[in-house]
Amino acid sequence: MVLVATRNPLNIGAAARAMSNFGFARLRVVNPFDPSYREARSAVGASPVLEAAEQFATVADAVADCSLVIGTTSATRRELQHPLYTLIAGAPFLRKALGHGRVALLFGSEKTGLHNEDLAHCHWLLRIPTHAQQPSMNLGQAVAICLYELVRSSASAAKPKMPKRATSAEVERISLLLFKLMKASGYLYPKPVRTDMEKLRRLVLRMNISARDAATWQGILRKIVWKIEKGGDPKS
Amino acid sequence: MVLVATRNPLNIGAAARAMSNFGFARLRVVNPFDPSYREARSAVGASPVLEAAEQFATVADAVADCSLVIGTTSATRRELQHPLYTLIAGAPFLRKALGHGRVALLFGSEKTGLHNEDLAHCHWLLRIPTHAQQPSMNLGQAVAICLYELVRSSASAAKPKMPKRATSAEVERISLLLFKLMKASGYLYPKPVRTDMEKLRRLVLRMNISARDAATWQGILRKIVWKIEKGGDPKS
Repeated sequence: MVLVATRNPLNIGAAARAMSNFGFARLRVVNPFDPSYREARSAVGASPVLEAAEQFATVADAVADCSLVIGTTSATRRELQHPLYTLIAGAPFLRKALGHGRVALLFGSEKTGLHNEDLAHCHWLLRIPTHAQQPSMNLGQAVAICLYELVRSSASAAKPKMPKRATSAEVERISLLLFKLMKASGYLYPKPVRTDMEKLRRLVLRMNISARDAATWQGILRKIVWKIEKGGDPKS
Repeated sequence: MVLVATRNPLNIGAAARAMSNFGFARLRVVNPFDPSYREARSAVGASPVLEAAEQFATVADAVADCSLVIGTTSATRRELQHPLYTLIAGAPFLRKALGHGRVALLFGSEKTGLHNEDLAHCHWLLRIPTHAQQPSMNLGQAVAICLYELVRSSASAAKPKMPKRATSAEVERISLLLFKLMKASGYLYPKPVRTDMEKLRRLVLRMNISARDAATWQGILRKIVWKIEKGGDPKS
């Protein structure tokens, strides 16, 4: 991660934080606005990433040991002289290259982005697919999104964490309790027909009840049945 | 996009900017730290999104017209009572739901995230897959990444087919009817406590009720309430 001529200390801090969030360690800054850089590094809770940041005078020095150099752009202004990938299309190449050597991802200053002389060090460019009306992103957010996309594919394998489902028998017990209440309350008027129980069972199945909730629902419904059948106070 | 109890004006501004970048327009803030909110709105270059932001006193009010409510979490602290998806797994469901009604995406305060009482309004939770050592993200960056994922090419993503969901207001009506029944039947013995309604709301939200089923459930529950309150035969 190479930040070129960044002016806002909050953005430097935000970039470093996103790197920690997604497991990237090596931050390099080129020619930062000096007071900003000092302020960012001395901020309370500055991350280890920021503390370990290396400072360079030129982009050439900062990327000297890298085998792939990629610039970021909102691609609105200039006639591009580089291949331009969307983040989604480019990320797999970048990930692949990370296995073979150092990769530099360059971000320009908040106001101007990367200059042509910076871009001259880049193999190709990356663009986050933003809206045409408002293409220019906040620096810290752009960094976060790029790093997210880089770790995204490995994370996508993670399965959603879902609670254990109720068994059919539990669903049936809940349906029967509800059926009893529907009859007792006059909901099935004038009298229940064969399909009422089927409709009810489908209704309950659509609830997608978890095993844990199934017990709760049965408890609630039993109390209500009790109240309707016995009338008086269930506590007595 | 619903920001709950946000303290830092820069984060409110950053969230609004990311919304513009990715084509989202409707920002709602719940109980923001007042000076921050005023500062964010009066900032030079405050976006149209921020100018059009609506302010609410409670999460319930802010999500009342939404048919899907999703909380965001770093999922490090609490024992979760909700289904938890990674952003990548959950985004297709969210995108799909956007075609059928309003979807609320909730972000908590910088320090504490969403509280349990906020989460009680959520159907499920979303987590950005960050590193275990540094899971907690900057608010503006988290917002940007979620919105990026939502507009990201969905070519490879699954397209779940889902019925139109009940709105939060309908879910609330169902919860209130059930609460009445739980009190009347003595289920909440010896007496209801503050968290009972939150637990119940979560229980009902986990049912994932469709708009159509919501009407059926209300009909059933109203009849049972009627029966318990009036005693006699509802047909007479």
